[in-house]
Order: sequence, then C-alpha cells, then structure tokens
Amino acid sequence: MRHKSLASTQCPIARSLERVGEWWSIMILRDAFSGLTRFDQFQKSLKIAPNMLTRRLNKLVESGLMERVPYSEKPLRHDYVLTPRGRDFQPVLWAILAWGNQHFAPEGPSVVVIDAQSGAQAEPVLVDRTTGRILAEPAFHTAAGPAASEPVRRRYAARHAGSRS
Amino acid sequence: MRHKSLASTQCPIARSLERVGEWWSIMILRDAFSGLTRFDQFQKSLKIAPNMLTRRLNKLVESGLMERVPYSEKPLRHDYVLTPRGRDFQPVLWAILAWGNQHFAPEGPSVVVIDAQSGAQAEPVLVDRTTGRILAEPAFHTAAGPAASEPVRRRYAARHAGSRS
Repeated sequence: MRHKSLASTQCPIARSLERVGEWWSIMILRDAFSGLTRFDQFQKSLKIAPNMLTRRLNKLVESGLMERVPYSEKPLRHDYVLTPRGRDFQPVLWAILAWGNQHFAPEGPSVVVIDAQSGAQAEPVLVDRTTGRILAEPAFHTAAGPAASEPVRRRYAARHAGSRS
Repeated sequence: MRHKSLASTQCPIARSLERVGEWWSIMILRDAFSGLTRFDQFQKSLKIAPNMLTRRLNKLVESGLMERVPYSEKPLRHDYVLTPRGRDFQPVLWAILAWGNQHFAPEGPSVVVIDAQSGAQAEPVLVDRTTGRILAEPAFHTAAGPAASEPVRRRYAARHAGSRS
C-alpha cells in the first residue's frame, strides 16, 4: 500500500523497485540466473515460506520478469523462466555482487564473475557505453530526462545546483 | 528475522541485500546522492512514515553506508551523509536506473545520467574493467571465488554445469 506513491512517480529507480524492491525477489532472480526453474528448487535454495515464494513468483510473472512454462499437464506444473526483461536485470545483480565483494567479504570473495573465455575473474564496472568512461560523480550526474514532468525538472535542477554548492 | 539464514551465507548478493534489501533504503540512498541530508528532507521527498524513516536511517548508519554529522548542538540535530561505502553503491543505483528506463518508461526517460563534460546522455553499461567487454552471459558467468566454502563450490559447480546442458 505504502508503495503506491512511488509507483506513480516518474523516477526509474522507484519504478524498478516497484517490481523488485523486496529482497526475496532479487534472491529469486539470482537463483533463476543460476539455472533454477522450479518452485521446489527455489524453496530449497532460499528456505523461504511457500506462501511468500508463491507471492514473489506471481509478482515477478505479473511484472514480466519471469514466465510460466508448463512441464507437466497432469498435474499441471510450471517452470519459472526468465524473460528478456528479467535477463536484462543481470547487470544490476552483478553490480550488487561487486559491491558486496568490495564491502562485505572480509575473508575474500566467495562468488565472482568469471570470463568464460579466459577463466579470469572479471571486475564489474559501470561505464558510459559511448565514451567508455567510468560512471561516477562528479564526471557524471543524474538529471531530468526528455520525458520529465515540470516538477521532476524543478526537482533535479534544484538538487543538482545544491550538490554543486 | 527470516533474513538470518541469508546473512550467514557467503553469497555477496545476499550480504548486500542484508544492508539495502528493502526498497526504502534504496530510495533513501537515491535521495542522499541527490544531495539530501536531513530527516525532514527525506521525509518530504519520500512521504515515508517517520518511524519507518528512523529505522531505515539507523540501519544505513549501522551498516556503514551513512554517518551522522551534527549540525546543531541544542537541540542535537544531524545531517545524514553518505560514507565511502555508501558512495560505492552508486553503480548499483545507476544500473537500476538504466533498467527502469529500458523497461518501465514507455513515455521515454524522465531521469537520466548525464556526462557533466559534454552534457550528453550517458548509457550505463556494465563491463569488465580489464578487458572492457560487456558483462553478459554466456561470455561471463558467476562461479565460486577463492574464499568459497566447499558447499558453495559444489553449488556453483553443479549450477554452472546445469546451465550449460
């Protein structure tokens, strides 16, 4: 309920969190990328209550991140498979992974991203596709985009000015 | 409470979500990057209940993502300021922003990342720092890292084999 106000905003972060802003959802996506597809597999991996898992899977299907693919007719059973929209979430997951390894793995990384070609450990970094430059402030900053409403424009204009002072 | 099992795992995504796996936390971080520092500013921006905001800010401080900096002695009042660990969350936020613009902005992007030098709109993309190649499956995949326990090694070995079949 309290999410409603955010869903109606234009902010793309708020809109994304409307779909995945609950950590079980992100853990399910993590497991889906690892190749899990079945209710029982997610449940075993996450040790999540079945009703909670049902709710989260339904939400991910509704939001177009996963889809149900029947693998048995009688009884009717489904695989839960990532859609292209769900697959596009992978950079977010790997950015979270990199941040976790950087700050919450004092014993060293337990899970890493590997270059399949060379077997080398990759170091995920967010860059601008055109220039290849690393995305970080103050070289880059957020701003109102082409579809921004007047309130969003004012908000970002004020904030950006504020952060420079 | 139900988070406990995940916190004790070695997974860097689970460990990160232990700190920010609640969407209010991410919205607070978003606003902090926009220059907001005060309780009232966050409350006004997010329209969040004060007790919830207090809880989230406390958690962010405990987890070392924000710190309290007094700006008034009597009465005692604090700014909430991002720490280096909090600042390192920015790529995650911008990856979420890019995904949101890609999938949940049918009218076009309302908030974008801008190259401060050129004023051009940046296109955030996650790459491997060493090779510059875009991080995506199957060219890259997750795997057990150097500090992985035996169960984590087995889990990733099995999963990776599974995803190839």
